[in-house]
Amino acid sequence: MKNCAKLCRTLSTLANASYINLKPSVVTDIPGPRSKELSSKLDSIQETRTVSFFIDFEKSQGNYLVDADGNVLLDMFCQIASLPLGYNHPAIIQAMKDSSQLLSFLVQRPALGVNPPVQWPQVLQETLQSVAPRGLEEVVTTCGCGTSANENAFKAAFIWKRAKQRPGVEPTTEELESAMQNRSPGSPSLSILSFENSFHGRTLGSLSATRSKALYKVDFPAFEWPVAPFPKLRYPLQGKQDLNNIKEEDRCLKSVSNILSTHPVPVAAIIVEPILSEGGDLSASPRFFRELRELALLNEVAFIVDEVQTGCGATGTFWAHEAWELSTPPDMVTFSKKMQVSGYYARKGLRPAQCSRIFGTWMGDPLRMLHCKAILDTINSEKLLERVKHTGEYLKSGLMELSNRFPEHIKNVRGRGTFLAWDCNNSEERDHFISALRQYGVNIGGCGKNTCRLRPALILESDDVEVFIEALNRTLKAIST
Amino acid sequence: MKNCAKLCRTLSTLANASYINLKPSVVTDIPGPRSKELSSKLDSIQETRTVSFFIDFEKSQGNYLVDADGNVLLDMFCQIASLPLGYNHPAIIQAMKDSSQLLSFLVQRPALGVNPPVQWPQVLQETLQSVAPRGLEEVVTTCGCGTSANENAFKAAFIWKRAKQRPGVEPTTEELESAMQNRSPGSPSLSILSFENSFHGRTLGSLSATRSKALYKVDFPAFEWPVAPFPKLRYPLQGKQDLNNIKEEDRCLKSVSNILSTHPVPVAAIIVEPILSEGGDLSASPRFFRELRELALLNEVAFIVDEVQTGCGATGTFWAHEAWELSTPPDMVTFSKKMQVSGYYARKGLRPAQCSRIFGTWMGDPLRMLHCKAILDTINSEKLLERVKHTGEYLKSGLMELSNRFPEHIKNVRGRGTFLAWDCNNSEERDHFISALRQYGVNIGGCGKNTCRLRPALILESDDVEVFIEALNRTLKAIST
Repeated sequence: MKNCAKLCRTLSTLANASYINLKPSVVTDIPGPRSKELSSKLDSIQETRTVSFFIDFEKSQGNYLVDADGNVLLDMFCQIASLPLGYNHPAIIQAMKDSSQLLSFLVQRPALGVNPPVQWPQVLQETLQSVAPRGLEEVVTTCGCGTSANENAFKAAFIWKRAKQRPGVEPTTEELESAMQNRSPGSPSLSILSFENSFHGRTLGSLSATRSKALYKVDFPAFEWPVAPFPKLRYPLQGKQDLNNIKEEDRCLKSVSNILSTHPVPVAAIIVEPILSEGGDLSASPRFFRELRELALLNEVAFIVDEVQTGCGATGTFWAHEAWELSTPPDMVTFSKKMQVSGYYARKGLRPAQCSRIFGTWMGDPLRMLHCKAILDTINSEKLLERVKHTGEYLKSGLMELSNRFPEHIKNVRGRGTFLAWDCNNSEERDHFISALRQYGVNIGGCGKNTCRLRPALILESDDVEVFIEALNRTLKAIST
Repeated sequence: MKNCAKLCRTLSTLANASYINLKPSVVTDIPGPRSKELSSKLDSIQETRTVSFFIDFEKSQGNYLVDADGNVLLDMFCQIASLPLGYNHPAIIQAMKDSSQLLSFLVQRPALGVNPPVQWPQVLQETLQSVAPRGLEEVVTTCGCGTSANENAFKAAFIWKRAKQRPGVEPTTEELESAMQNRSPGSPSLSILSFENSFHGRTLGSLSATRSKALYKVDFPAFEWPVAPFPKLRYPLQGKQDLNNIKEEDRCLKSVSNILSTHPVPVAAIIVEPILSEGGDLSASPRFFRELRELALLNEVAFIVDEVQTGCGATGTFWAHEAWELSTPPDMVTFSKKMQVSGYYARKGLRPAQCSRIFGTWMGDPLRMLHCKAILDTINSEKLLERVKHTGEYLKSGLMELSNRFPEHIKNVRGRGTFLAWDCNNSEERDHFISALRQYGVNIGGCGKNTCRLRPALILESDDVEVFIEALNRTLKAIST
């Protein structure tokens, strides 16, 4: 058995490199020749049309990615909002080096629901339970991705709804037998209410709730579930001073209320994102969400907050819904992305009476749970929620200023923390803008029809904001002339 | 920055320990007091009723697990069939130590569909492409679990089916608009045909195809998809000599044919497991599957083989469907479990014309892909498929002998390689048998109504088979007296 010199050398290289202060440096078109060559190789086995460019993950550091061609970009998109501490953060590397639990999970994946590792209860307590949304400390179910997190939350809502309708605890023989035929009453006519422009995943159940893009949905069978309008507000949000916005939110709440009382397929749960991300970074006021929660209570439907994209700090609070100051916590909160592990939190009352109804072989990955622990520890020790609030204000004010100077190109600046966005005139201009900005050394994302979204790591600093604003400024000047 | 002494020490401990030859040793009831204590701790945050016992993954070695109470069991279930090389295999540990790519994936998860790592094309070629089922070398899509693998395969089938029905390449405006409302024609009435007792996952789409247990399905909305009978055969299979079995298979094929031509919801794909595992380890003859494939071709529906549980060697061939000797390869093959990564292979013709239709944030985990590479390399270097065939025959003959001696307790021995099973008289006797066997030092699984299933690692040896048969013998004697 050889020693682990190679692994140690790599570890040390990564750890030392993390002190190098990278700056944007663009030396080729993006994607460059090496990325194109890799794409062509990859295309012999896998879809490549969604690939922007390839990344050298070993060379990337902090807020800066290094692509396959040696271009260095400030990364304000961060693996579709799933990189909380940027690249090769020294604290994560150190945590992995210090973890005596690591190797056994690296060389074998446990079936967590049947034979959990002896460390599992403690790891869960130190991670997911330690950041549980208020009121949801007693149930967390883990799984493999965001779409499964939402599917499982839907299932918990259906079980809860049907249990309330049943006189006894156990399903009847008729229910069990008809369920095997996918027929009522065992397979009930129940629905999930979601919003226009929402995104909740891509498997057939979660996709029935997703309403962001037709190409995500077309050709697939879908459940006859209702959709409510989501407020189309005037940005920046002015709170109670903007009567038009209040009126628009009331119109949407009324529509929700109507659906809950009249839709032919009874609603078991409402699901909503704190900021409708994939659908165009649409916001609403805390009052809107509080009213929505009240409507759910009044109509006895579960209230699910989808924090797959908003969770884990980027809005300035750990969970974005904390800003709503709800008087009754949500029934469930789903998570994934920056958390590295996915799943849902629930009220204790949402534990099913029977076991093995929400289940899978792996039910997550303890290796990524250790990763999650290192992230949560670092968010605490480096006070990153504070930093996000501070950096977010600086970033937003820079965006507002550019919006004032280039009102034709930067519209409707919005968002919280560093979870910010603006609109372009149309999708072509937006796509062109993202490509142009990349050539000035900054990587951002698009969403909705014409929106640019920022999803930087929580470690973004004022210096990085200045790099970003400077590149944005140069891009705007270039496209304005 | 501290050095990585701790990590190296753990690595070396695991590697040295792997040479220790463990033997069954039961010192407490299973679950023992420590497992019960951990369960009680875990129950404050997570469902625990499915937990059999907790495992000390660092102490477990090879085919032997060590539980939280120090009991040593020969593991013939292996994390629900997902542990191909047992515990702490030295080759996997060495591969992880030698991997210079490892750390960057350990400290950050890439969004593989947008910014893949520079190593990704090569890693994919050396892993999934190197073991691609014949004819499916050009498309592999990765995701996070087995249920998502099947959901994505269904989506690929629906896209393919609708594309054939459409005069142009792009969906019409009417299709796109109606899809946003979950209505026809954009959300078409199309179905997946599956079999009685099949298991294909737990999200709402894959669950509509799952037909193994009512409690998995009850209370959840389901698509009106058809189900065909799966042959109820007499075991052990005798091939062409058993006319009753042939007749039974023909009855089921006729039912499939009827559904394909008359079901009110047109069928886009047939999905079938080579051995219906969760539903009771039900087998059929290669001829049955060949005829099924022909029916799919004749009716222009996709033929999906679900190898989530059967894939990666345990039946003696890398993919179980290789034994069918199909003249036309399946349209898709799904995988997960022993592969450590999940996804589906497809014919090139099943690549959608538009991009971003089958997609997710992570699309798998490159860390588990390195794990998969180490596994595949070891299967090759240690000639484990050969070993499985050899050990499987020895294991099956031992089971047959016990079945002859205890015909009231070991019925219908069946399966291929080490992927073997038998029936008990009913579920109570089966559950009791599994518990009793555990006290004699062997861990096995249950499935279906009254079936015991064996899912050992591919490294099982004749010595281990003898340990197993001896424990089984003692258990049978104990329950027979």
